[in-house]
Amino acid sequence: MRSDPARTGDAVAAIDTPALVIDLDAFERNLQRMAGFARERGMRLRPHAKMHKCAAVALRQVALGAVGVCVQKTGEAEAMAAGGVRDIYVSNQVVAPSKLARLARLARDVKLAIAVDNVMAIERLALAVREAGSAVDVFIEVDVGQGRCGVAPAQAGALARQVVAHAGLRFAGLQAYHGSAQHFRGVAEREAAIRHAVDVVVAARAAITALGIACPLVTGAGSGSFRFETTSGVYGELQPGSYAFGDADYARNEADPHAPRFEQALFVKAQVMSASLGHVVVDAGHKSHAIESGLPTVWQRDDLLCSGANDEHAVIKPRAPGAPLPALGETLWLVPGHCDPTVNLHDHLVGVRGGLEAGVVESVWRVDARGAVD
Amino acid sequence: MRSDPARTGDAVAAIDTPALVIDLDAFERNLQRMAGFARERGMRLRPHAKMHKCAAVALRQVALGAVGVCVQKTGEAEAMAAGGVRDIYVSNQVVAPSKLARLARLARDVKLAIAVDNVMAIERLALAVREAGSAVDVFIEVDVGQGRCGVAPAQAGALARQVVAHAGLRFAGLQAYHGSAQHFRGVAEREAAIRHAVDVVVAARAAITALGIACPLVTGAGSGSFRFETTSGVYGELQPGSYAFGDADYARNEADPHAPRFEQALFVKAQVMSASLGHVVVDAGHKSHAIESGLPTVWQRDDLLCSGANDEHAVIKPRAPGAPLPALGETLWLVPGHCDPTVNLHDHLVGVRGGLEAGVVESVWRVDARGAVD
Repeated sequence: MRSDPARTGDAVAAIDTPALVIDLDAFERNLQRMAGFARERGMRLRPHAKMHKCAAVALRQVALGAVGVCVQKTGEAEAMAAGGVRDIYVSNQVVAPSKLARLARLARDVKLAIAVDNVMAIERLALAVREAGSAVDVFIEVDVGQGRCGVAPAQAGALARQVVAHAGLRFAGLQAYHGSAQHFRGVAEREAAIRHAVDVVVAARAAITALGIACPLVTGAGSGSFRFETTSGVYGELQPGSYAFGDADYARNEADPHAPRFEQALFVKAQVMSASLGHVVVDAGHKSHAIESGLPTVWQRDDLLCSGANDEHAVIKPRAPGAPLPALGETLWLVPGHCDPTVNLHDHLVGVRGGLEAGVVESVWRVDARGAVD
Repeated sequence: MRSDPARTGDAVAAIDTPALVIDLDAFERNLQRMAGFARERGMRLRPHAKMHKCAAVALRQVALGAVGVCVQKTGEAEAMAAGGVRDIYVSNQVVAPSKLARLARLARDVKLAIAVDNVMAIERLALAVREAGSAVDVFIEVDVGQGRCGVAPAQAGALARQVVAHAGLRFAGLQAYHGSAQHFRGVAEREAAIRHAVDVVVAARAAITALGIACPLVTGAGSGSFRFETTSGVYGELQPGSYAFGDADYARNEADPHAPRFEQALFVKAQVMSASLGHVVVDAGHKSHAIESGLPTVWQRDDLLCSGANDEHAVIKPRAPGAPLPALGETLWLVPGHCDPTVNLHDHLVGVRGGLEAGVVESVWRVDARGAVD
């Protein structure tokens, strides 16, 4: 664990670089907008904690009405439980007996759910909960268009029958998340993708109910598509993650005029450490911000662009050749290409109240599940 | 800090997934080959610890004759010193007074060097070492072709004069690393890039010696180009990092028939967690292996390719449509696209002796400087 990049009460200028900084005012408005949207439409909200990996953030989401959080990994579930979250859903596949045993033990202490898409996982999970003396909710994952995990709709019935055959497993419904649709640029493309997802979900649900098994809930949706799942009449729970912080890739999506707007709340504070004739270099490379969804943008400096990044360097150029450049030592605020893997690079989230210019550090949160890949 | 993914004495099969695994036999042969190459040619070897961030690895490199290590960050220097490394070179720009003060304090305990490319850094560093009562070696960074940090050769003389004017700063020579050249695919391209770098170095050195200032050492080179710096007659020290572990991107380089060959020693152990008709999904996405230099390859499974990755998923397909796929629960060994940022995602390096098939865990090393971006 590294030393803290800031202390509460520090001025923004005192935050060490590079550091991951949250504009708390924007962040809280984002939480309220999503919570209000879900509440007004009678949707359960279960934000995805894989994005922030931080129990303090999860507890704020729950305080505003979220039923709990999603996670992707066993280690994330343990970190969220240790941080006080009482309702956790592992919305991903787990087949290793050692991990299923850990989850079954965790289910003694918190309300736990897990996604499955195969018989091996169901049988191993059933054994694990029997040995732990616990019970878990089980969602069957259907592939609603991403071509990743999940079964075809026709297979969902057979899996649901497997689930209900085991004491300790409660069939909870369908995991139906279309990840790639979140980043389709056009609103119409995203809407069409979710229309397809809904068709798949309806077919899978029919395959289950035809066997006399009730399907209590369909859960899915992300920050790019949640309006369409909400109006589908089929989904009952939303799993958005990125809305809380935002990133440069989501900012490239065409905005949906009928969905709430979210503000950029996540920044990498960086410092110019080298200045040449045509460019400057800041001290935050792709060990400080993930670039697999594109290079970062420079906040409120439309005159500047990031032209490349290495592990510990990002090169900043003027958009207009010859235009003025930031000075050596100057602070630049980078908006990461993708928030989830960026947060995972850092040990701390520095919360600033009162804006990036004149604000004050209000909180330094641990990224509790950073590195929890197991 | 997460729980360890393995214990010493475990069979390979018991290593939790995903985990970063080192084939210790291949790793040690790599260390010996590079150490032997440098020793036979009278070159100083100062491996780059930004790649492995692990004091245990650094100490093995030093035991084989390395003079010390390079790092890129103040926090990395502190982690290496805490782990017992006594000779550390920050081969990167640092301008923040708080970081320069930390480095100056560190220089009381270890032999410390730092790169500079501007007067602000020199003056702040001089103040910091005066206050700490320490002394540091200073290299002037010249831009030898990457277009990132570093001055033009004509500016090197004026900076050297600034350095020698300060008690506590010892002018040590030139930092002359061509990062992008390491990944030029053809041997001839890499050789041409280093020929240009040598021309720049010769000009910078002439600008310094013309002022009556001796230039003791030129340091640079990486795993893709080190033979050319070695035969240049100008460079005296090599800074390769990736040779110790290897990655899929370096494997795409045309091999230099006159340089030692290095073996792939770094793997992400992954498990198939979902199986569909045309693909399987493993539990190691880009929170387990960095993809900014390309997707991972599947070790010794030329019949398989990784077609895409998300945060916690990698999709594996057969190269020949319809060919057999790995089974649910099966282990696959991924070779990451880029070793440096991959290691930075993990808390531990699991060292295996006796091969990936039948080997035994011999060591579980902490990645001491993981996340040390400051």
